Amino acid sequence: MEKGKNSKNIMDYATVTLLDAENAIEIIDQTKLPGTIELIRLKSAQEIWNAIYLLKVRGAPAIGVAAGFGIYLLAKEIETEDYEVFYEAFQKQKEYLNSSRPTAVNLSWALNRMEKVCIANKNKPVAEIKELLHKEALEIQEEDIRVCKSIGEHGLTLVKPGDGILTHCNAGQLATSKYGTATAPIYLGEERGYHFHVFADETRPLLQGARLTSFELHAAGVDVTLICDNMSGTVMKQGLVQAVFVGCDRVAANGDTANKIGTSVVATVAKRYHVPFYVCAPTSTIDLNTATGDDICIEERPAEEVTEMWYQERMAPEGVKVYNLAFDVTDHDLISGIVTEYGIAREPYTESLKEILSKRNA
Amino acid sequence: MEKGKNSKNIMDYATVTLLDAENAIEIIDQTKLPGTIELIRLKSAQEIWNAIYLLKVRGAPAIGVAAGFGIYLLAKEIETEDYEVFYEAFQKQKEYLNSSRPTAVNLSWALNRMEKVCIANKNKPVAEIKELLHKEALEIQEEDIRVCKSIGEHGLTLVKPGDGILTHCNAGQLATSKYGTATAPIYLGEERGYHFHVFADETRPLLQGARLTSFELHAAGVDVTLICDNMSGTVMKQGLVQAVFVGCDRVAANGDTANKIGTSVVATVAKRYHVPFYVCAPTSTIDLNTATGDDICIEERPAEEVTEMWYQERMAPEGVKVYNLAFDVTDHDLISGIVTEYGIAREPYTESLKEILSKRNA
Repeated sequence: MEKGKNSKNIMDYATVTLLDAENAIEIIDQTKLPGTIELIRLKSAQEIWNAIYLLKVRGAPAIGVAAGFGIYLLAKEIETEDYEVFYEAFQKQKEYLNSSRPTAVNLSWALNRMEKVCIANKNKPVAEIKELLHKEALEIQEEDIRVCKSIGEHGLTLVKPGDGILTHCNAGQLATSKYGTATAPIYLGEERGYHFHVFADETRPLLQGARLTSFELHAAGVDVTLICDNMSGTVMKQGLVQAVFVGCDRVAANGDTANKIGTSVVATVAKRYHVPFYVCAPTSTIDLNTATGDDICIEERPAEEVTEMWYQERMAPEGVKVYNLAFDVTDHDLISGIVTEYGIAREPYTESLKEILSKRNA
Repeated sequence: MEKGKNSKNIMDYATVTLLDAENAIEIIDQTKLPGTIELIRLKSAQEIWNAIYLLKVRGAPAIGVAAGFGIYLLAKEIETEDYEVFYEAFQKQKEYLNSSRPTAVNLSWALNRMEKVCIANKNKPVAEIKELLHKEALEIQEEDIRVCKSIGEHGLTLVKPGDGILTHCNAGQLATSKYGTATAPIYLGEERGYHFHVFADETRPLLQGARLTSFELHAAGVDVTLICDNMSGTVMKQGLVQAVFVGCDRVAANGDTANKIGTSVVATVAKRYHVPFYVCAPTSTIDLNTATGDDICIEERPAEEVTEMWYQERMAPEGVKVYNLAFDVTDHDLISGIVTEYGIAREPYTESLKEILSKRNA
């Protein structure tokens, strides 16, 4: 990995960039934020895998974009003109990248989409397949930008100027190529003078809300207040929140949604205080092959994220057990709507999600 | 403040000790845990005030004990034989100590109790009043131990051997003189072979659950698992929790309860997953002069507790707004029972709390 230049405003940088001539992906190392804006370049399969596993690049859509770029670069390196040899090597790299994180469906979605390009063009020369993979990877990124903007437009219909909006974790620009998913209505609203008051949950253990969401919204001039996750109930009870927008890593066929740990807690609290709870989900995160939330694989991560990461010294005793899941499932009955680029799905989700997908496939 | 000796097992130390001959209160500096067990001595009014404000000593019952010892030591220093002069100086010191933290009622409860000793004995020599204050301060501490044990006995009737118990913040031995309130059923159960599985919420921002609760339970040999506050919903949904026990800082006449920020979130989640939610409350925390939770003063604390405390570097951008309340109110409809030393109060609390207090006053 090579270090890139630094700058002051996070909004000037793309989350993920393909540097094709240099056979590299350039990303903002999100583990260094907000203290340092450091651009790093990923070249090898292991560098890409590590960057995803270590959350240097994170957020379901951005992981999808990075995976698309990554598998393209790795495919480009396969030196053969024999399709079968090429395809076998492609699949190995694909499986490796796919093992970096289990919960976000965008990872496998992007990799499968790239694989389909190989299969559909198996009779073409390998060099041409590589060029088609290049195009597809770029298209995944361009789509991401269009999709986020469209989610923003639909989301914006759910709120009024001056509203308080709470969000959990980071489903912002740093989780996507632009706009974010949960933040898309906020950014679009800001452009149009809505002047929202945003509450950003800090989001333990890795503090994406403090480090990333409050950082990017603050840099963009949005009125944002950072709160501990434990404050969500209080700000809702005080009437400061008119809507919750969160991102998601996977939507099951029944509308159950996996997202950052604590999301289901926010949803439960929102229900108590009659605050609508919206999940912003590109259709790429909808997975009809997953029947319910119970069928979603939930990643468990190291204890040290809770006991020592970010800290000057351990803040838990040596030897204490830790249970550290990265995600939880929000049951569909807690979700007021799932905001996609093709509109807003509502209960019953088993039907509305299919309708949304049929619009995409039309 | 003078430093005292260190040792290995936190359970060997008293949370608060009166060193009468040395005109000092000795406490474990809880801001240094779990890394360092440091005993410090408090002598001046300002040292005592700071220790309470900075959470070197914390937890409603322990604050009450420290305040009792503190006002006794400060009274002892008042050099006069004139009751009126003595009482005026006493009141000034009382008001000063009382201003250190607003939410926990035990602070003013202990100070008022000490003041009553003065008033009831105003015709006695000042030297004798000082001796009576000494006795009263020690009695507050002895009562605390008896009360906690009794809360433990009542709490233990609510759970079965092998149960999973979740607790938030630290209402443990470190918050009291012994046993704790929320942990009293756990410690008593452990002595009797109940083998509970305890989940300790880490409790942002000051991490009392990670630093104190998981520390003292682990030191005592209890099976404890540390979780981020965001995990509470998941462990309940997974069926790992059969009861929640929390402490409290003030119980209003209608059963609304102030406790560490996030407690109401845990209660809301517990209700969703049908997990009974119990508040462990010495009767000294019941304040019938406070009608409902809306009438409880909630302390707001510095932004830096959220943005930089405990961290190697800031984990939130410079200049971002922070909203950092130290407590929240759990509405009485979320509370399955309030466990006191005189038994368990249940809905309707307006009646049951009065009954409990009449038992105390009988």
